[in-house]
Amino acid sequence: MIDARARVSGRLGYTINEEPVGTLHVAIARSSVPHAWLKSVDITEAARQAGVVDVLTGADLQDGSIRPLFGPVYRDQPILATDKVRYVGEPIAAVAAVSACAAHQAAALIEAEYDELPAVFTPPDALADDAPVLHEGHDDQAPGYADIVLHGRGGNVCNMFRLRKGEGLDGFKYADRVFEHEFVTPAVQHVSMEPHAAVAQFDGDDLMVITCTQTPYAVRDALAYMFMLPTSRVRIVVPPVGGGFGGKCYPKVEPIVAVLARRAGRPVKVVLSREEEFVTNSKHQSFIRIRTGVRHDGVIVARHVDALFNAGAYTDISPRLIKNGGYGAVGPYRIPHVHVDSRAVFTNTPSAGAFRGYGVAQGCWAYERQMDIIATELGIDPIELRRRNLLVDDDTFATGQRMHDMRFRELFDDAVSLFDEPAGEEAVDPAIRRGRGCAVGIKSTITPSTSNASVKVNSDGSMQVLTSTVEMGQGAHTALAQIAADGLDMDVAAIRVVGPDTDTTPFDTTTSSSRSTAAMGTAVGRAVDDVREKLLELAADQLEASVTDLEIEAGRIGVKGAPETLRSIAEVVGRSALGTVWGNGTCVWTGGLDPNTGQGIASDHWHQGAIAVEVDVDTRTGKVYVRRLRAAVYAGTVINPVNARMQVHGSVSFGISQALFEQIVHDDGQVVNSNLSEYALAGRLDLPDVLEVSLLEDADSDVIHGLGETALPPVAPAIGNAVAAALGVQLRQQPMTAERVLAAWKGRA
Amino acid sequence: MIDARARVSGRLGYTINEEPVGTLHVAIARSSVPHAWLKSVDITEAARQAGVVDVLTGADLQDGSIRPLFGPVYRDQPILATDKVRYVGEPIAAVAAVSACAAHQAAALIEAEYDELPAVFTPPDALADDAPVLHEGHDDQAPGYADIVLHGRGGNVCNMFRLRKGEGLDGFKYADRVFEHEFVTPAVQHVSMEPHAAVAQFDGDDLMVITCTQTPYAVRDALAYMFMLPTSRVRIVVPPVGGGFGGKCYPKVEPIVAVLARRAGRPVKVVLSREEEFVTNSKHQSFIRIRTGVRHDGVIVARHVDALFNAGAYTDISPRLIKNGGYGAVGPYRIPHVHVDSRAVFTNTPSAGAFRGYGVAQGCWAYERQMDIIATELGIDPIELRRRNLLVDDDTFATGQRMHDMRFRELFDDAVSLFDEPAGEEAVDPAIRRGRGCAVGIKSTITPSTSNASVKVNSDGSMQVLTSTVEMGQGAHTALAQIAADGLDMDVAAIRVVGPDTDTTPFDTTTSSSRSTAAMGTAVGRAVDDVREKLLELAADQLEASVTDLEIEAGRIGVKGAPETLRSIAEVVGRSALGTVWGNGTCVWTGGLDPNTGQGIASDHWHQGAIAVEVDVDTRTGKVYVRRLRAAVYAGTVINPVNARMQVHGSVSFGISQALFEQIVHDDGQVVNSNLSEYALAGRLDLPDVLEVSLLEDADSDVIHGLGETALPPVAPAIGNAVAAALGVQLRQQPMTAERVLAAWKGRA
Repeated sequence: MIDARARVSGRLGYTINEEPVGTLHVAIARSSVPHAWLKSVDITEAARQAGVVDVLTGADLQDGSIRPLFGPVYRDQPILATDKVRYVGEPIAAVAAVSACAAHQAAALIEAEYDELPAVFTPPDALADDAPVLHEGHDDQAPGYADIVLHGRGGNVCNMFRLRKGEGLDGFKYADRVFEHEFVTPAVQHVSMEPHAAVAQFDGDDLMVITCTQTPYAVRDALAYMFMLPTSRVRIVVPPVGGGFGGKCYPKVEPIVAVLARRAGRPVKVVLSREEEFVTNSKHQSFIRIRTGVRHDGVIVARHVDALFNAGAYTDISPRLIKNGGYGAVGPYRIPHVHVDSRAVFTNTPSAGAFRGYGVAQGCWAYERQMDIIATELGIDPIELRRRNLLVDDDTFATGQRMHDMRFRELFDDAVSLFDEPAGEEAVDPAIRRGRGCAVGIKSTITPSTSNASVKVNSDGSMQVLTSTVEMGQGAHTALAQIAADGLDMDVAAIRVVGPDTDTTPFDTTTSSSRSTAAMGTAVGRAVDDVREKLLELAADQLEASVTDLEIEAGRIGVKGAPETLRSIAEVVGRSALGTVWGNGTCVWTGGLDPNTGQGIASDHWHQGAIAVEVDVDTRTGKVYVRRLRAAVYAGTVINPVNARMQVHGSVSFGISQALFEQIVHDDGQVVNSNLSEYALAGRLDLPDVLEVSLLEDADSDVIHGLGETALPPVAPAIGNAVAAALGVQLRQQPMTAERVLAAWKGRA
Repeated sequence: MIDARARVSGRLGYTINEEPVGTLHVAIARSSVPHAWLKSVDITEAARQAGVVDVLTGADLQDGSIRPLFGPVYRDQPILATDKVRYVGEPIAAVAAVSACAAHQAAALIEAEYDELPAVFTPPDALADDAPVLHEGHDDQAPGYADIVLHGRGGNVCNMFRLRKGEGLDGFKYADRVFEHEFVTPAVQHVSMEPHAAVAQFDGDDLMVITCTQTPYAVRDALAYMFMLPTSRVRIVVPPVGGGFGGKCYPKVEPIVAVLARRAGRPVKVVLSREEEFVTNSKHQSFIRIRTGVRHDGVIVARHVDALFNAGAYTDISPRLIKNGGYGAVGPYRIPHVHVDSRAVFTNTPSAGAFRGYGVAQGCWAYERQMDIIATELGIDPIELRRRNLLVDDDTFATGQRMHDMRFRELFDDAVSLFDEPAGEEAVDPAIRRGRGCAVGIKSTITPSTSNASVKVNSDGSMQVLTSTVEMGQGAHTALAQIAADGLDMDVAAIRVVGPDTDTTPFDTTTSSSRSTAAMGTAVGRAVDDVREKLLELAADQLEASVTDLEIEAGRIGVKGAPETLRSIAEVVGRSALGTVWGNGTCVWTGGLDPNTGQGIASDHWHQGAIAVEVDVDTRTGKVYVRRLRAAVYAGTVINPVNARMQVHGSVSFGISQALFEQIVHDDGQVVNSNLSEYALAGRLDLPDVLEVSLLEDADSDVIHGLGETALPPVAPAIGNAVAAALGVQLRQQPMTAERVLAAWKGRA
């Protein structure tokens, strides 16, 4: 990675390192109750503390000078609570002070008076007839979400996605057997090393925010709307980010610092604590009921998915996530008749949002765990059962999309080749049970979406790549630099990747959805093609030759077959009088689903992954040890093999961690494990000794496939299937903690 | 001006306001002698002061890790003196400390040991046979100066420009009378409100410098060369600048902060004091001998210019300035035979560089003062004498360039129309003498040179203009915003001008030479044309119409004659899936002179100005009062009438100040008036009560003419001519201080 040395030696500047002269620091006072009318917020003591410059409450935001609600789809989230609080940890006041210490001390003195309401914490409870309702209706839909049609909003239903393929529920008449199960996953935290942080500053009407967002343009547009400014007057700058994993999409802490910056006329900065991270964003808790009709030979004929995703207190991106999670829960199988209802449900918990795997991991846990249950019931080898149903080219997916470039069979065979190898040293301890499991996963990438890039060749032949792709440790900038270098046969050291800065780097939809190397990489490639063409035109002029007679070789341009005419790119630019030569490139992915049937183009291309895993389970403790794991992912063209493998390693690590350890635990709406002592994450020793990664490349095409999430969804069900194989118990709830496994083992029939 | 409110209310962030976390502050220790071998620099005491992090001397820069000499044409200026010091005030050591106070206290403790050498302070002295020689030869010419050929470098001659037109000196044979005089102007200071300041920071190998330079790309290239980096790894960011006037061109304080930043691994900042400004850069002192051959009827047939410009101790941009000053000293007259030798000469004074008027003001003082002397001698009205000789279309200039768009006659008649008006109330005091004078001036603009611009239309219809033109109070960004707004019938409030930032804003040669509104304005106009074309294509697609059937009106696009089809630009961009729509534009000015004859294209177009002035001189004190002044300048198309007039006001103010007050005074090489108590500048009360500005527009073309300097050169000679008319004494030296006028009056024949 081009920034590896700076990153590991502490020289990379993150948002937290930004502190303009005169910066004020923010501390946020938060609700201590999950659901209540907010009767009053007393800031008297806080305001009189030394060093405190401003104390803001929701009441200060009602004068019409700003629009105090935000949200990427529905604008239903207040910057600071006003009439109501809807979760423990909701911001109710903010202090700006000359030091972070002064701000936090003052914030601790803020007292609120509540009129408490009954609260609900899970979707099933929230859908009960007598459940308290969180929202009384917010109809301020944000633009740019033509792909989202809001069905069923009302009560505590935030939104519903529905999909109807073939004969839908009537398709079950073709089934010999029908299986129905519910699968559950908990809310988990992104736990990026870098917490949310932002620095805002107004210069007259012009707002600049330095922030660790994954979606600079979306944050720009949201703040412009909030402050009623042209988007050209809002500038979002994103320094290198210390991990995102979806948790830094759309406005989070930016509105509060921007409001305080405007009031103070000074730069204002906030850095969340780890504890606050846990009440800021998370992965959706899910309850997925899946009913599958199969023939005796194991061929699936119908599937009915009823998915409930816990949106938490505010909409955030739930409507889009449950769409992907809805069709994603059908799995990479050829199923003629499909019926999906996927609902996001409000509860009195912190808002859930984008999370690596984006709703698809929850569904994969359901359909792949069920696949092994069905195999067991039908007496068919689960490997064979999958082979009979996996999508191949020209099959139609749940969305009706005719599929091409389907590599599931190859990937699956590749993954389960793990089992061809000798099973490693046998467990000598009879209390240890060994099991093998496998799973596949299909994931879409955000469609429609757009990436633009510019490149600029300087008169010494070096180059800037201007991009709004966020470098958050995933190595995107490295990949973009490599693509740019390749296009002109240049040394990658002469290339610098610049951005995001919404003032100057071109529009990009988002750094998420494993799309950057694929979409932005394509845009950069096209920008380099553009600049290459311009360089050839300049050289043709200089060499008095025709463009078609020229070639670029090792960063030099000359007439084909006349090496004496070769001149460096630097020379071509230098002689051109232009100073620099620019190129622009665009990559647009088009598609979309019919809002009533969920039929259409869900994804420009598909992330395809397969996992095989071997576990040992200690029947005395219930602890699961992942011994060996093989991940096979469709990679298309690999730009950077080391980073590509690291992405798969990261996905496997996330998958194991969620399979076995991670869950946010609430007590009456209060997160009780919002710290890294009590919130368990997989450590290095929890990873398998044998971790094999197979990147399936495509020799015939230069298509790039993102790899940020591909391997993740099938990890947990593969482990679940291996545990089932080892113990003969079917766990349907994540995480498979030692306690839970032990209880299942002890309670086995 | 779009930034007027922020600028006057103190909310605009200048370089001085930039202070990243952990910034070190720099103080510079300077030579106390004008010319000496530098035997040693003792930093022991300084280094042990509290808060001092680093103390740097020239010896630390000799290890080959950087190239320690810089300069835009010849790299002959050391970051810190090593073997030799060449002027009082030359940097010999630099302290980086945690506060500016600590740095300055430590720097005061640095002791140097000198082996003094004889020194010279004026070009005539420096050219004497036995003069000490400052440089032993530096042949490291920087690239990109194909227009400069170095003649006569050697001894103390830094460089010579020569021009030969027609029969050259032989042309004097056609003359009836020959007049020869020498005219002198002193070194003066730019006195920008904002001093030189810069903040440098290394991130790994990547260098970022925030600095108030007028030439971000030139500084980038110089630092890349210095640190042996690709230019893509050096980023120059220029905040709003508080006045430049030429004094902030090319590296000045940037090398020293960059070196210290690399050593410290921390941000490093320097802000020069007013005193240091006086030893950092200045206007060239000049000694111009001008010999003119005329016929009895006043028609000029030959001119010989021998110009000496005091370069100070290092080359800086002198070779280019004396070229412009050389051909510029011939004046806007039709002269068939011309011989010019223009030399830059090294002396033991601070380096001179670019200064509003760029060498041309010195020559104008010579030729326009001489014109009145000739008129007096020939008994021809000076107005009539000029009319007989002024350039008209199809005449050839001194450089042999065939002139077009010559408006000197109109401008001159316009200016002297001041004298048609009643002469104001008569002086009742018989000791007050009233006089009238006029003068014309011709100035080139930097040719060849290039400006590129990009514009970006957002999905709400707002726009960014990306430019490397520096906003330094001259209103360039306002003009660019207006040009961009006009191109799309947009509200200027929706436009934000961004830059310079060499990472992201396109190449521009320089913000100087009165070129920005003309060159960058043209580039912006073309970028808007480009984006306009793209918007029309997108709209044509959306409206299923042909581009030729569409029109843009008041920021909306639709089918001609079908107002119901009109949609906003925002809608067109929003529907396009591109996110933003980009346009690029370029303006290249081409030209150049033959290095041996000075013949060729010196300027893309010509700045043409005329001044008429009426003065009162108090014969008891010698004090000159400028009562009325009329400036007529060729403006082409005026973009912003208020700002255009302000530019002319500024030039007049500079002209009066230099005519009457300004001079840097040395005593044995030491500047003795380096403060604003003793260095006299014109104040508001020194400006005329009647100050008329006439902007000659061109209805037939949309060519823009820069106005930053046009009026300046003729101001001083017009005042000199008016003083001559009032008193009958011919002053040939600036400034015309009260003492000097009184002495001339008392010593008159």
